[in-house]
Amino acid sequence: MDLMEAIRGRRSIRSFLDRPVEDEKLQAVLEAGRLAPSARNMQDWRFIVVKDEPTRHRLAEAARKQAFVGQAPVVIAACGTSDLVMTCGQPAYAIDVAIAVDHMTLAAFSLGLGTCWIGAFYEDQVKEILGVPESARVVALLPLGYPAEPPRQTPRNNLVDIVAYESW
Amino acid sequence: MDLMEAIRGRRSIRSFLDRPVEDEKLQAVLEAGRLAPSARNMQDWRFIVVKDEPTRHRLAEAARKQAFVGQAPVVIAACGTSDLVMTCGQPAYAIDVAIAVDHMTLAAFSLGLGTCWIGAFYEDQVKEILGVPESARVVALLPLGYPAEPPRQTPRNNLVDIVAYESW
Repeated sequence: MDLMEAIRGRRSIRSFLDRPVEDEKLQAVLEAGRLAPSARNMQDWRFIVVKDEPTRHRLAEAARKQAFVGQAPVVIAACGTSDLVMTCGQPAYAIDVAIAVDHMTLAAFSLGLGTCWIGAFYEDQVKEILGVPESARVVALLPLGYPAEPPRQTPRNNLVDIVAYESW
Repeated sequence: MDLMEAIRGRRSIRSFLDRPVEDEKLQAVLEAGRLAPSARNMQDWRFIVVKDEPTRHRLAEAARKQAFVGQAPVVIAACGTSDLVMTCGQPAYAIDVAIAVDHMTLAAFSLGLGTCWIGAFYEDQVKEILGVPESARVVALLPLGYPAEPPRQTPRNNLVDIVAYESW
C-alpha cells in the first residue's frame, strides 16, 4: 500500500472480528516496528504479543475496563527498556517506542488490520500481568485484529492552525 | 511510495545538499504529520518551520553544536502543547508528537528528502530562539533537506531479541 494512503486511511479501531490474525501478518507488523529508528540505535524496546484470551481480558481490565482491548485476537504491549534521558529532557524510550508503534499501526492498516493506541491503562497492573520487570516501562497497549466497524474519521485541525513559520 | 519500502529505506541523514526544499514537498511532509492520531484527538502539537539561515545555525548551536542541523535548508521544531498525563503515566504530548514526526520522516523519505531525529538539544535555548512559551515543550528538532550522503544502514536486532510471547 502507498505510504500516504496508509497515513490517510489509518483509523483507531475499537471493535474487532472474532477472527485470528495470520502469523505472517503479525510478523510483518512486528517487522515494521523492528525497523524503526531509535536514539543511538539503542532499540530500547520489547514487544509482548498476547494471544491468550484470559490474559487479554485481564489487560482489558487494567486498561480501565475497555472491553474491546480484550476482544482483539492480539494485544501487543510495547515496552521501553532504557533509562537514557536525552539532552532535550525527554526519555529516549518513550519517543523510540512511539516511533516503533506508529510503524506498526501503519503496517497493520496496510494489511487490512486495525489497531488502537491505548494509553489509558494502569501500568503497575499491566506489568504484573505480563511479568514486566521494574526497570522497564509499558508505553502503550496495541490491540490488533480485523476491524468489525467501518473506519470512522475524526476531524483534524488545518495546517494553518498547527504550523508556524520562523517562530512560535 | 510503498509503505514498507519507506519503512525499510528511511535513514537518518546528517549531511544535506545546498538545495531548497520545494514548498509543495514541505507541505506534503507537514500534511503527513497533521493526519497523525493523538490522545483524545487533541492534536496537541505545533510545528515551527525554520528556513532562516541565522536561526538555523542558532538551533544547531543549541543542538550541542551539531552543525549539520543548521546546514539543512529547513529545520522543523516539533512542540507539544498539552499537559495531559495518560493513565499509563506517559505525557500525551510526547507520544503524540513522536507519532506525528514519524509520519513526517516517512513522508519526507518518500519524496526523496532526508531527515534526522534530533533529541540532543538544550530545550531552554531552543525555546528562547523560537519564542516557544513556557507551557509548551520542544520534543524534537527535525532537519529536512536533500541528502548529500548515500543512505547508511544501521543494524537492527532480530525479532527474536525484541519480541516476547504471552509474557516478558
